[in-house]
Amino acid sequence: MDVRAAVAVQAGKPLEVMTVQLEGPRAGEVLIEVKATGICHTDDFTLSGADPEGLFPAILGHEGAGIVVDVGPGVTSVKKGDHVIPLYTPECRACPSCLSRKTNLCTAIRATQGQGLMPDGTSRFSIGKDKIHHYMGCSTFANFTVLPEIAVAKVNPDAPFDKICYIGCGVTTGIGAVINTAKVEMGSTAVVFGLGGIGLNVIQGLRLAGADMIIGVDLNNDKKVWGEKFGMTHFVNPTEIDGDIVAYLVNMTKRGADQIGGADYTFDCTGNTKVMRQALEASHRGWGKSVVIGVAGAGQEIATRPFQLVTGRQWMGTAFGGARGRTDVPKIVDWYMEGKIEIDPMITHTLPLDDINRGFELMHSGESIRSVVLY
Amino acid sequence: MDVRAAVAVQAGKPLEVMTVQLEGPRAGEVLIEVKATGICHTDDFTLSGADPEGLFPAILGHEGAGIVVDVGPGVTSVKKGDHVIPLYTPECRACPSCLSRKTNLCTAIRATQGQGLMPDGTSRFSIGKDKIHHYMGCSTFANFTVLPEIAVAKVNPDAPFDKICYIGCGVTTGIGAVINTAKVEMGSTAVVFGLGGIGLNVIQGLRLAGADMIIGVDLNNDKKVWGEKFGMTHFVNPTEIDGDIVAYLVNMTKRGADQIGGADYTFDCTGNTKVMRQALEASHRGWGKSVVIGVAGAGQEIATRPFQLVTGRQWMGTAFGGARGRTDVPKIVDWYMEGKIEIDPMITHTLPLDDINRGFELMHSGESIRSVVLY
Repeated sequence: MDVRAAVAVQAGKPLEVMTVQLEGPRAGEVLIEVKATGICHTDDFTLSGADPEGLFPAILGHEGAGIVVDVGPGVTSVKKGDHVIPLYTPECRACPSCLSRKTNLCTAIRATQGQGLMPDGTSRFSIGKDKIHHYMGCSTFANFTVLPEIAVAKVNPDAPFDKICYIGCGVTTGIGAVINTAKVEMGSTAVVFGLGGIGLNVIQGLRLAGADMIIGVDLNNDKKVWGEKFGMTHFVNPTEIDGDIVAYLVNMTKRGADQIGGADYTFDCTGNTKVMRQALEASHRGWGKSVVIGVAGAGQEIATRPFQLVTGRQWMGTAFGGARGRTDVPKIVDWYMEGKIEIDPMITHTLPLDDINRGFELMHSGESIRSVVLY
Repeated sequence: MDVRAAVAVQAGKPLEVMTVQLEGPRAGEVLIEVKATGICHTDDFTLSGADPEGLFPAILGHEGAGIVVDVGPGVTSVKKGDHVIPLYTPECRACPSCLSRKTNLCTAIRATQGQGLMPDGTSRFSIGKDKIHHYMGCSTFANFTVLPEIAVAKVNPDAPFDKICYIGCGVTTGIGAVINTAKVEMGSTAVVFGLGGIGLNVIQGLRLAGADMIIGVDLNNDKKVWGEKFGMTHFVNPTEIDGDIVAYLVNMTKRGADQIGGADYTFDCTGNTKVMRQALEASHRGWGKSVVIGVAGAGQEIATRPFQLVTGRQWMGTAFGGARGRTDVPKIVDWYMEGKIEIDPMITHTLPLDDINRGFELMHSGESIRSVVLY
């Protein structure tokens, strides 16, 4: 069938909106009509050419929501008409990782997904005789896409596509980092570095988990009002304080009879490896957990003195917020519908597919929290 | 009173055995007759001058066992005649750290202990008019010493001093890293880097926890027989394999339907920051935990790509094996008495105090696993 897609033709070039061909679903696969998709920094990272594993031409996009319009042979968990969110982290419930109860990083289709292909090693997208790569197993920058059954989460059909598409990546990553990875408890103290879309979702995850002190750190003072909207209790701009940000935060979080400072939990949402170190070192002696969420540039490294770990800090990371896609994503949609979490204010811009490149510009200029393409 | 002590007079010089003066216990303090003390790498680190926080003159030693011979006013938890192990990590059961249930790093006397002083800010040791510093709150290189009540663990009086002194540091650090810090489960796969005294205790901790595959890594092939004595199932000498040690270990631990390698748990017992990185990277995608136990040289840093954390590995450390001294140390003594753990084969040498410097030489030459001074 003919579908409309924004194709990443070449690294560093704008997307080109065009008609491409999409084959129907094979065994174990489903055809989705995409109704909305967010534009995420990861799409931009790949499009820029900075991602060493980026493949071209490809149909990017991994933060979508839509409707199942056809299913291939053997598909049992979803049917035509179901509302779904595509999952770049699938959940097969059978591989050693899914069965470990310790990680969400399902390995069932890892190899082919990394090659921009469906699990059978082929692509469903083409233009004339030329194949186009899938991206992160999703390719939501097309109005129809094909996914493996294990890579769609069936969600509440009353939920609006233009909002819940954001649960396909940013919302789940931020909230999940708090709940699944750090396992923040009531009354905790936390610092969030970087108040973009991920950082704001970490903040609302912390509010949800009952954190007492939620400190946001950003170079841009305009982010203060954004952070406060979602539960931030204190704001720090590192360029406006005297001295070192780590010492400042440790001092700010001093409490208890021994007046030892440091946050119970810290989150890096910047992708800056220097900030990742600050986040670790601003966590509390004895039990501080620091979670890396941001994606660093290729080849960059994090460093610290091992004494930071020996005295009880833990350095960890998260991908898709440690969430199991088919199990946890429908719950987060329900939380949105019940008003436990907010999404609407974060969707600052909506665009038609033809204007998708403007969504990337809004991201670069810092004007948007999230732009969503509506089909 | 006059006591016999090995005094660290100056950095880089051998200890000098001499008679020094010891004041009796003040409020909340106890006087211990030290019956045996191990000689640990940390003593050597400080004596060498490499420890930036080292103070001189001092009475080193922190791995002892002895008998309470006097108690100061207000002491309630131990009495004359009790057998005890001095604790360089005290357990006050009242500070925010003790009450956190998350760490063993009691802060009650941290500031004064770091200054080589008793909690009231003075020293009990002197020679003539000159004060001598305490060391790690213990100073077991003297046949009598004074400790705060919160820094002694009361243990089974049938246990032999010349063996259980090792529980005061090495045994508890190694076994505790497995049980308290990493929380290793039955059937796990683990790699231990460095088969000195700590590494061997990690190995017996892994055996105790029911690990299936216990891989020891050391540059010295003589350590193979040592590792096997305590439960090691595989030995790797990095200088005798082709290629990179991380890739070798990942390949060796491949298992399950997806054939992803990496150990569930890895432990650095070398103090080498390059090895710490290898340990992290040899742990399993999704859930590998890597524990830093070794103490690195001043100013040295660990580094890795943040991708290692984002894909689910956790980097952590341990001090005194995460053990609460007064609560956990007596249990470990009981485990020794019940034959659950072994110590005897690790005590390779015993010496009188007058020969203490020979104990350091045996450590440097790699001849000893542990040398113990008997008073």
